[in-house]
Amino acid sequence: MVVKRSVKRQKSGKTTRSEKVFIFSFQPACAWLNGRQHKGYHYVLVSPAAERLRYILNEDDDMPTPTLFTEMDTLQREGDELEWKESARWVKFEEKVEEGGERWSKPHVSTLSLHSLFELRTCLQTGTVLLDLEGYSLPQIIVCEMVTQIEEGMLSPELKEKISFVLLRKHRHQTKKPIHRSLADIGKSSSATSDHRLSKIYSMFFLLMFCTPGHAQSRSMNDIADTPSTDQLKNKFMKKIPRDAEASNVLVGEVDFLNKPFVAFVRLAQATTLGGLTEVPVPTRFLFILLGPQGKAKSYNEIGRAIATLMVDDLFSDVAYKARDREDLIAGIDEFLDEVIVLPPGEWDPKIRIEPPKKVTSADKRKSVFSLNELGQMNGTAEGGGGLAEDEEMPVQHELGEELAFTGRFCGGLYLDIKRKLPWLPSDIYEGFHIQSISAVLFIYLGCITNAITFGGLLGDATDNYQVKQSERTDIWCRSAALDMFVLVVFINSLYRCITMLLLLLTSKRNNGIDYMELRLWIGMHSCLQCFLLVATDASYIIKYMTRFTEEGFSSLISFIFISDAIKKMVGSFKYYPINTDFKPDYVTTYKCECLLNVTGLDWSQLSKKECLKYGGSLVGNSCKFVPDLALMSFILFFGTYSMTVTLKKFKFSRYFPTKLRKLISDFSIFMSIMTFVGLDMLMGLKTPKLIVPTEFKPTRPDRGWLVMPFGKNPWWIYLASAVPALLVTILIFMDQQISAVIVNRKENKLKKGCGYHLDLFWVGVLMAVCSFMGLPWYVAATVISIAHIDSLKMESESSAPGEQPQFLGVREQRMTGILVFALTGVSIFLAPILKFIPMPVLYGVFLYMGVASLSGIQFWDRIKLYMMPSKHQPDYAYLRHVPLRKVHLFTLVQIACLAVLWTLKSTFLAIVFPVMILGLMVIRKMLDMVFSQHDLAWMDDLLPEKEKKKVDDKKKGKEKEKDKEREKEKKKKPKPDDSDEEVRNSGFCCPLQE
Amino acid sequence: MVVKRSVKRQKSGKTTRSEKVFIFSFQPACAWLNGRQHKGYHYVLVSPAAERLRYILNEDDDMPTPTLFTEMDTLQREGDELEWKESARWVKFEEKVEEGGERWSKPHVSTLSLHSLFELRTCLQTGTVLLDLEGYSLPQIIVCEMVTQIEEGMLSPELKEKISFVLLRKHRHQTKKPIHRSLADIGKSSSATSDHRLSKIYSMFFLLMFCTPGHAQSRSMNDIADTPSTDQLKNKFMKKIPRDAEASNVLVGEVDFLNKPFVAFVRLAQATTLGGLTEVPVPTRFLFILLGPQGKAKSYNEIGRAIATLMVDDLFSDVAYKARDREDLIAGIDEFLDEVIVLPPGEWDPKIRIEPPKKVTSADKRKSVFSLNELGQMNGTAEGGGGLAEDEEMPVQHELGEELAFTGRFCGGLYLDIKRKLPWLPSDIYEGFHIQSISAVLFIYLGCITNAITFGGLLGDATDNYQVKQSERTDIWCRSAALDMFVLVVFINSLYRCITMLLLLLTSKRNNGIDYMELRLWIGMHSCLQCFLLVATDASYIIKYMTRFTEEGFSSLISFIFISDAIKKMVGSFKYYPINTDFKPDYVTTYKCECLLNVTGLDWSQLSKKECLKYGGSLVGNSCKFVPDLALMSFILFFGTYSMTVTLKKFKFSRYFPTKLRKLISDFSIFMSIMTFVGLDMLMGLKTPKLIVPTEFKPTRPDRGWLVMPFGKNPWWIYLASAVPALLVTILIFMDQQISAVIVNRKENKLKKGCGYHLDLFWVGVLMAVCSFMGLPWYVAATVISIAHIDSLKMESESSAPGEQPQFLGVREQRMTGILVFALTGVSIFLAPILKFIPMPVLYGVFLYMGVASLSGIQFWDRIKLYMMPSKHQPDYAYLRHVPLRKVHLFTLVQIACLAVLWTLKSTFLAIVFPVMILGLMVIRKMLDMVFSQHDLAWMDDLLPEKEKKKVDDKKKGKEKEKDKEREKEKKKKPKPDDSDEEVRNSGFCCPLQE
Repeated sequence: MVVKRSVKRQKSGKTTRSEKVFIFSFQPACAWLNGRQHKGYHYVLVSPAAERLRYILNEDDDMPTPTLFTEMDTLQREGDELEWKESARWVKFEEKVEEGGERWSKPHVSTLSLHSLFELRTCLQTGTVLLDLEGYSLPQIIVCEMVTQIEEGMLSPELKEKISFVLLRKHRHQTKKPIHRSLADIGKSSSATSDHRLSKIYSMFFLLMFCTPGHAQSRSMNDIADTPSTDQLKNKFMKKIPRDAEASNVLVGEVDFLNKPFVAFVRLAQATTLGGLTEVPVPTRFLFILLGPQGKAKSYNEIGRAIATLMVDDLFSDVAYKARDREDLIAGIDEFLDEVIVLPPGEWDPKIRIEPPKKVTSADKRKSVFSLNELGQMNGTAEGGGGLAEDEEMPVQHELGEELAFTGRFCGGLYLDIKRKLPWLPSDIYEGFHIQSISAVLFIYLGCITNAITFGGLLGDATDNYQVKQSERTDIWCRSAALDMFVLVVFINSLYRCITMLLLLLTSKRNNGIDYMELRLWIGMHSCLQCFLLVATDASYIIKYMTRFTEEGFSSLISFIFISDAIKKMVGSFKYYPINTDFKPDYVTTYKCECLLNVTGLDWSQLSKKECLKYGGSLVGNSCKFVPDLALMSFILFFGTYSMTVTLKKFKFSRYFPTKLRKLISDFSIFMSIMTFVGLDMLMGLKTPKLIVPTEFKPTRPDRGWLVMPFGKNPWWIYLASAVPALLVTILIFMDQQISAVIVNRKENKLKKGCGYHLDLFWVGVLMAVCSFMGLPWYVAATVISIAHIDSLKMESESSAPGEQPQFLGVREQRMTGILVFALTGVSIFLAPILKFIPMPVLYGVFLYMGVASLSGIQFWDRIKLYMMPSKHQPDYAYLRHVPLRKVHLFTLVQIACLAVLWTLKSTFLAIVFPVMILGLMVIRKMLDMVFSQHDLAWMDDLLPEKEKKKVDDKKKGKEKEKDKEREKEKKKKPKPDDSDEEVRNSGFCCPLQE
Repeated sequence: MVVKRSVKRQKSGKTTRSEKVFIFSFQPACAWLNGRQHKGYHYVLVSPAAERLRYILNEDDDMPTPTLFTEMDTLQREGDELEWKESARWVKFEEKVEEGGERWSKPHVSTLSLHSLFELRTCLQTGTVLLDLEGYSLPQIIVCEMVTQIEEGMLSPELKEKISFVLLRKHRHQTKKPIHRSLADIGKSSSATSDHRLSKIYSMFFLLMFCTPGHAQSRSMNDIADTPSTDQLKNKFMKKIPRDAEASNVLVGEVDFLNKPFVAFVRLAQATTLGGLTEVPVPTRFLFILLGPQGKAKSYNEIGRAIATLMVDDLFSDVAYKARDREDLIAGIDEFLDEVIVLPPGEWDPKIRIEPPKKVTSADKRKSVFSLNELGQMNGTAEGGGGLAEDEEMPVQHELGEELAFTGRFCGGLYLDIKRKLPWLPSDIYEGFHIQSISAVLFIYLGCITNAITFGGLLGDATDNYQVKQSERTDIWCRSAALDMFVLVVFINSLYRCITMLLLLLTSKRNNGIDYMELRLWIGMHSCLQCFLLVATDASYIIKYMTRFTEEGFSSLISFIFISDAIKKMVGSFKYYPINTDFKPDYVTTYKCECLLNVTGLDWSQLSKKECLKYGGSLVGNSCKFVPDLALMSFILFFGTYSMTVTLKKFKFSRYFPTKLRKLISDFSIFMSIMTFVGLDMLMGLKTPKLIVPTEFKPTRPDRGWLVMPFGKNPWWIYLASAVPALLVTILIFMDQQISAVIVNRKENKLKKGCGYHLDLFWVGVLMAVCSFMGLPWYVAATVISIAHIDSLKMESESSAPGEQPQFLGVREQRMTGILVFALTGVSIFLAPILKFIPMPVLYGVFLYMGVASLSGIQFWDRIKLYMMPSKHQPDYAYLRHVPLRKVHLFTLVQIACLAVLWTLKSTFLAIVFPVMILGLMVIRKMLDMVFSQHDLAWMDDLLPEKEKKKVDDKKKGKEKEKDKEREKEKKKKPKPDDSDEEVRNSGFCCPLQE
C-alpha cells in the first residue's frame, strides 16, 4: 500500500502532502524495529526516499559532481536602497559574516534546527522547482521562475515587477570594499526613476525572451553585471575553492509587498557566471530564492542556512545535480534527515560554534549505502546497523606488504626489491627540489652532526684536558663524513651513528695487545658475509614478527640513550668547570693560583696551567681547581636551546601570525634556537666549549695509511674467532636497520615507492666491508634521525576548505635531502670557521630535544603517562575504549621491565649480549600471547602473523559467505510489496498508516 | 481544524496515529513562516504540544521536581545466565560503559539519531504507560505492566512468565566487582529448576497481589534484592548526585521469544528503592522497559539512550513528573524535538564524543517559555525568535550599584557604607577558617613581602656595596610591617606598597636642606584632610565615570611596573656581579687581585676588598672588578622561579593526578617554586644575594624617636605649601584606592557583602595621618595584590554532575586572610632565620610572575595580542563578533598611546603631574565618545552613565511598551481558532492538512 502511493506520487510528479512523504522517510526505522528474524527484511528496509536516491545516484556513477561553493545573501536596506548582502558562505563548513565585526567568523559546523529543515522541505514542496533551466542571465532566470509561479496560480501577476526589482538589486560581498560601489553610486543619481524604468524592462523581458537563451542586450540594465568584476577575480578566497567548483546562491529576504513566501529552486543546465552574484568568479549552478512577508527574517535566514548546508552536503549535492524532479530533492532531504545527528537542547548551547572535526565520515562511505551490492548495510549509516558495526571497531591490521613475503628462491627478495626500486630512481632526484627540503636538510644535518659529535665525544677536544684519547675516533668520524654522501645514494632513510654499545664490547679487547684496526676489519668482513647470507636467504621476512612492542621497545631505548647522554654530558660540564661555591666577593683579594717551579729562569707568572704542569711545576692556590661561569653558562645554553626549540615547535599551534610563517618557524625551530643561543654565547664572550671540526682531510694517525691491511699484526686464530663478535654485530645491525625501516615504512606514512628490506641490508653489508677496509666506523640506520627525517618531509594538502583539517598526503620521497645532508657533513670541514662558534651545550640541548621529541610519538610513552592519570582524565585513546585499564597497565609494565633489563645490560659488562637481547624482545612478545587475549593485543600491539590470525580471517570469510548466502535466499524469498506492507501494518506496533 | 483534532485526541486519551501528532508538533514553524504581520500570530504560534505542556508545567510551579539519575541496563548473556548489565548512566551528561575497557567513558553530550527519537515516540504511543503506579517491588510493577498489556490485547498471556523471568534477572553494575555475585553464584546451582519455580511464583503474584501494595514475602525469590547492597552504599559516585535525586531506570534487551516489542513506561507514585536495580542507593521513580525480538539490539540501545537523555532533560523530566497521560509525554518529546540542535552528517562524525560545553541554556529560561506572561517569546527558544534575540546580544551593562549613588547629604555615603558593612563583621571572621585561606595567606604574604622589598630596594643591603642610601627607607618599611596588621582589620582588600612614583617627586626636594620627615608629615596631614573632605562630599561617586578603559589603563601600568622592575633588578645583578668574559681557564695562574697599601705593618694579603679600600689601599689585578658565577646563578634562579610558577599554575589544566591534588599544586605554585629554588640555591652554596630582614624592632635612625614632631625644622611657609604636593598625593591615593576597589568589586566577582568606597577612603585618610606621625610610608591599595587576593579566594561548586563545569559561586569574603598576612609580615622579623635563605632573584622571579599573571586577565592585553593574529585565527571574543576589527585596533592603539605617555611621564621629571594624568585617562575616555559609536564602546568598554545611556534606556522602554500595547491589541483581535486555521490552510504554503 505504501509503495503504491509512492508510485502514484511519482507519476503525478508533484504533491503537497508533506506528512505522507515524511512518514515514508522514517518508515525503515519502524520496519527495522519490527523486523521479525529478518523475514521480509530487505524489502521493507529500504524507504521510498532511499530507493529513489539509489536509482538516481547509480545512474552514471562515472562522472563525479563538482564541488559546490554556496553563498547566502540576505536582503538589507542600506540607506534608501535595497541591496543583497552576503551573510554566510560554505565550502564545506559555514563561515558567517559577523554583523558588527564586518568580518568572517571562523569556519564552523552548521548547527541547524529541525524547524528550519522541515520548513525548507515545505518550501521545496510548494515553491517553484526549475531543473535544467537554460538561463544565461539573472533577469532571465527570474522571469522564468515567476512565469512558472504565475501559471500555477501561486503568484499574482501584479507582483512580478516588484519581485524582479528586488531580486536584481546589487550584491555586496564581504570583501574589503563592496563590489559594485561604483555602479551603486551611479545608480543612486537615477534612483527616482528606476522603479518606472525597471517595470518597463521586465515587461519587455516577459514578452521578448521568455525562457529562451541569448538576448544579452538588456543585461546591463539591472544592478548585476554579467562579467566577473576585478574584485571578484582578485579575491584570495578563490584558492580555497577547488578549480572545478560551481556555485550555488541562496537569496533570502523579507519584503513588504508579499503576503506569502515566494520560493524558487533553480538548477541551470549549464553553470553560468551571473555577474557579481557570487563573491568569487565561480559559475553558478543552483539558485535558491526565498522572499517572504516581513517580520520573520530570522526564520528565513535559518531556512537559507538549511538549504546552504544541504547544498554542500556531499550526498545531497549529488542528489541536487541528478534530481529528475521535485520529489528527488525531497527524498534527498529525507535521506539527510535520516542521517542527521541530534544534540539534546539541555546539554548543548546552540550559540556555541562547533569547530570542524578532525575527521568526518567520507562521502563515498555514505554514498556506498546506495549501491545495489551493499543493500544489506542499508541502515548501518544511521545507527551502526547491528553486528556490522562491531567489525568496524576492530583496529586496522598491521600489514607489512608483499615486500616481506618469503620467496623461497635464492636472492628472490633482493631481485624483487631492485625491480621495485629501479623505476623510481629519476623521480627520487627531481622530487627533491622543494623548499621543504632545505628545512629538512638543515634539520637533519644539524641532527647528524650533533649526533655524531656527541656519541663520538668531541667534548674531549673542546675542553682540552678531558678524554684526549677520544680524539682519535672523532677524527675517524670526521673523515668518514665526507665519504658518506656515496652511501646515501643508495639509502634514503638510513643515516648514521657510531655504535656506542659495540664499542664497549670492543674496548674490553683492545687492551690485550691485539691490533684493533685489523680485528675490526675481520669482524667487518665476517659481518658483511653474514649480511649477504641473510639477504640471499630472504631472512628479512622474520621482521614480520616484529610488532609495535618490539619497535617501540627499541626506539624508546634509543630515545632514552639520547636523553641520558645529553644530560650526562651536561652534568659533565659541572665537573670540567668546577664552581667555587665558597667564593666570597669581598675577599677577592685572597683568591689566586700560582705556579711553583723548581726551575728558575722562566717567567713563571706567565706560564699557563698546562705549561706549568708540563714543566714539572705544581699549582698552588685556592682558585686553581675552579673555573668560573662556564658551567652555569653551559647550563643556560643547554636548557635554553632545549626549551626554545620545544616552544617554537609548538608555535605551529598558536594563534599568532599567518599559518605559513608559523609553519616556517616551527620547521626551523632547531635552527633558530641554535642561532639564538650561539648569538647569546657570542654576546657574552665566555669561553664555552665550542664545536671543533678538523680542517684537514687525512688519516688520523700518521703511522697508518688510507687502507687497513688484513694480515700481519694479529695471530691467525683471530681471523676465525672474529666471526663470533661479527655475529653479534650482524644481529645488531640487522635489528637496527630493519626496525628503522619498519618504522619508516609504516602504513600511516603513506610511502608510495615501496621498500627494499633486502636491498638495504645488502648495501649495509657492502658498506661494512668498505668501512672496515678504510678504518671508518660502521653505519647503522639511526632510528631517531630516520623518524625525524620522515617527519620533516611530510606533505599536507594545501587548498583544503576553510576549517577542514589539511590531509596528510604522504612523504616527499626523494634522495636529494639525504645526499645533501651528507654532502654538507663532508663539507663541514670547510665550514669549520662557522661551526666553531657553536657551543657544545647548545648541541646537547638539541640532542635532548631530539630524544624527547621522538619519545612523544610512541604509544608506549603515552601508556606510561596513563599511570599518572586518574582514569576519568585519560585521553580517549582507541585502545582504552576496548581494553581494560589493568591490562593496559600490565602490558606497559612488561615493556618497562624489558626496557629496564635492556638498559641495565647496556650499562654493564653484559653489553656483549645486548644485540641478542633485542631479539629476545620478540620472544617475549610471543609469550605475551599466552597472557593477553588476541583482542587486547590487536588493540595495544599488532597480531603476530600466525595461525591465529589465519583462523580469524577464515572465520570472517566464512561469516561473510554465510551472510551472502542468506542474502540470496532472502532475495529469492522476497515477498511481494503489498504483503510485506501488510505485515508491517498488522504488527500493530509502529507507523500504522491505516486511516 | 487542527485544534479540533488535537482536542479530539486529548479526549480519546490515546492514539496510534503518529503522523498527525508529529505534524502538529511542527506546526508552529509553518505558522510562523506565514505569520502575516503578526495577524493571528499568538494563537497559531502555540502548537498543541506546547499548549499541553504549558498547562501541566504551570500546574504547581512551587514544587521543584527532583533531579533524575538515569541508568540504562541492557540484557546480556553471561555464560548460561541472562543478566542485566549497566551500559550507560546520566546525571546530566552521558557516561558510557566502555565494553572492552570495562570502565566509564568521559561524560559527553548524548548524540542521538532522529530515528531513535521517532522510534521512541512510537514506543510511547503504542506501549504501556502506567503513571503513578503504587508499586513497592519490581515483580509487582512488572506484573501490573503485563496485565495492562494483556488486557489491551497487546501481549499474549503465555508470554508473561517468560517476560517476568527476563526482567527479574540480576543486575550487574559497572563497579569494581559485580553486585550480587554471591547471589548469582548461589543461583547457578539451582538454575535448572529456576524456570519452573519462577513460573509458579508469577502465577502466584498474578493471583494474589495484582497491583496492590504490600506483600513483601515473595520479594527474595527473584534475583533482585530489595534493600540497597553494601556495594551500592559504598559507591563513591553518590557524591556526584544531588541529595534529593531520584532514579529512572531504562532496561532494554532482545529476547528470542517475542515477535514484537514489549514496551512499558512506568512512573511510580512514590520513589522506591527497587533493590539492586540502580547502581547507587537512589530510589527509583521511573522505569522504561523495552524488550524486543532478536537482531536489533543496536536499535533498542539507541531507543534506550534516547529515553535516558530525555529523562535527564530539565524540561522533559518536569513533563514526566507532571504528565497526566500518554499524550503529555508525547507532547514532551515533541517539544524536545522542537528545540533539538541538528548537525549535518557530512560535517560531523557521529563517533566523536562531544565534550560537555562550558555553559548550557538554563532550564529556567527554557521553561519560562511556557509561562503565560512570556507568550510572545514562544519561538525564541529554537531560533532566537526575531527581534528579541538582538537585545540578548547586547553586552551586560557595567553597573556599580547603589554604593556609588550621590546622596547629597554630608557624609551620607559614609553613613550608608557603615550601615551596610556592620552586619557582616562577625561573618568576616568565622568565614575565614578554611583550608583555602592558608594558600591565599601564603601567596599574598609572599607577594606582599616581595612587593615591598623590591620597591623598597632591599637589594642595596644584600649586595653590600650598592645603594647603601636605600637601607634607610627599607628599615622604615620593615618596622611599619609590624603595625600593618591593625590596618587590615578595617581594609579587607586594601594592601600596601611604597609609592615609588611619589618618592621620585620627593627626592627632588629632599636635597634642599629641608627636613624630609617633617615635610612628609605635613603633606600627610593635608592629604588626610583632603581625603576627609572627599569622603564628606561623597566625591567617590565620580568613579562611576571610571570605565574599563581607565581601570585597565591603570592596572596594566602597574603590571608593567612590576615586570619592568623585576627585569631591571635582574639586569642589575649583572652589573653588581660583573662577569669576566675574557677568563681563560688555562691561564688561571694569571688572574689575581692584590691590595696595594702604603701603610705597612698590616697583613695586606688578609684584607678584604672593603677593608683594603677602607685603609686607603688600591686594588690591583685583573680579577678585582669581577665576581664569578653569581650573576648567572641569579639569572637561573630568577628565570627558573618564574617559569616553574607559570608551569605549575597551568598544571591545573593537565590530565595528571586527581583534580584536588592538581588544584593544590596550582594554588601553591608560587610557594613550591620558591622552595625548589631556595633548595637549589642552598645546594649550590653560592653567595647569591639573600633577603635580609632586620632582627630588631626600633626606629631606623638613632637620632629620631618614635614620633615625628610637626614643628621646628622647616620654615613656616612649608606647612602651607605642602598642601599642593598633598593634593597630588590625594589624587594618586584616591585613584589607586578606588580603581582597585572597582576592579575588586566587579560584578563577575559576585561579592555579596557590598562595598564601602567612602568608608575605605576615610580609613585611608586616617592612616595617612597616623603613618605620617610615626614616620612610616603611606599606604595605597595595590591593584595587583588585590586582584591576586580575590583570585586566590574564589569558590567553585563541588558536587557538579560529571562533565559539568564547576560553577563559580563567589569569593570567600572575610578578613582573616588579610589579618594573617599582615600579622605574618610583622612576624617576618622573627622569621628572619628562615627568610634569610631566600635569594633575592627568586623573589624577583615571583615578582615577574605576578606582573605577567595580572596582565593576562586584562582585556586590553588580549586586544594587543590581536595585532599579531591573522583575523581568521583570532579567538571568538564577544566584542569581535560585534565591532569591526579596525575599530578594535584603533581603540587599542589609543590605550597604548595613553599608557606610553603615562610611562614616559613616570620615568621623567614630569612624574610630579603623574597623578593628574591618571585623571586625564577619564577625560580621554570621555572624548572617545566622539570617535566611537556607543554600540562599539558598549562592547569594548562600558558606557558612561550619561544622557546617552538614559536615552537608550528610554528608547528600549518605549519599544517594550509599544510591544506590550501591540500584544494587547492582538489579544483582543485574536480570531477564533477555526478562522486562524483556515487562514493557514488557505495560504496554500505549508503543512496543508486537507485530505
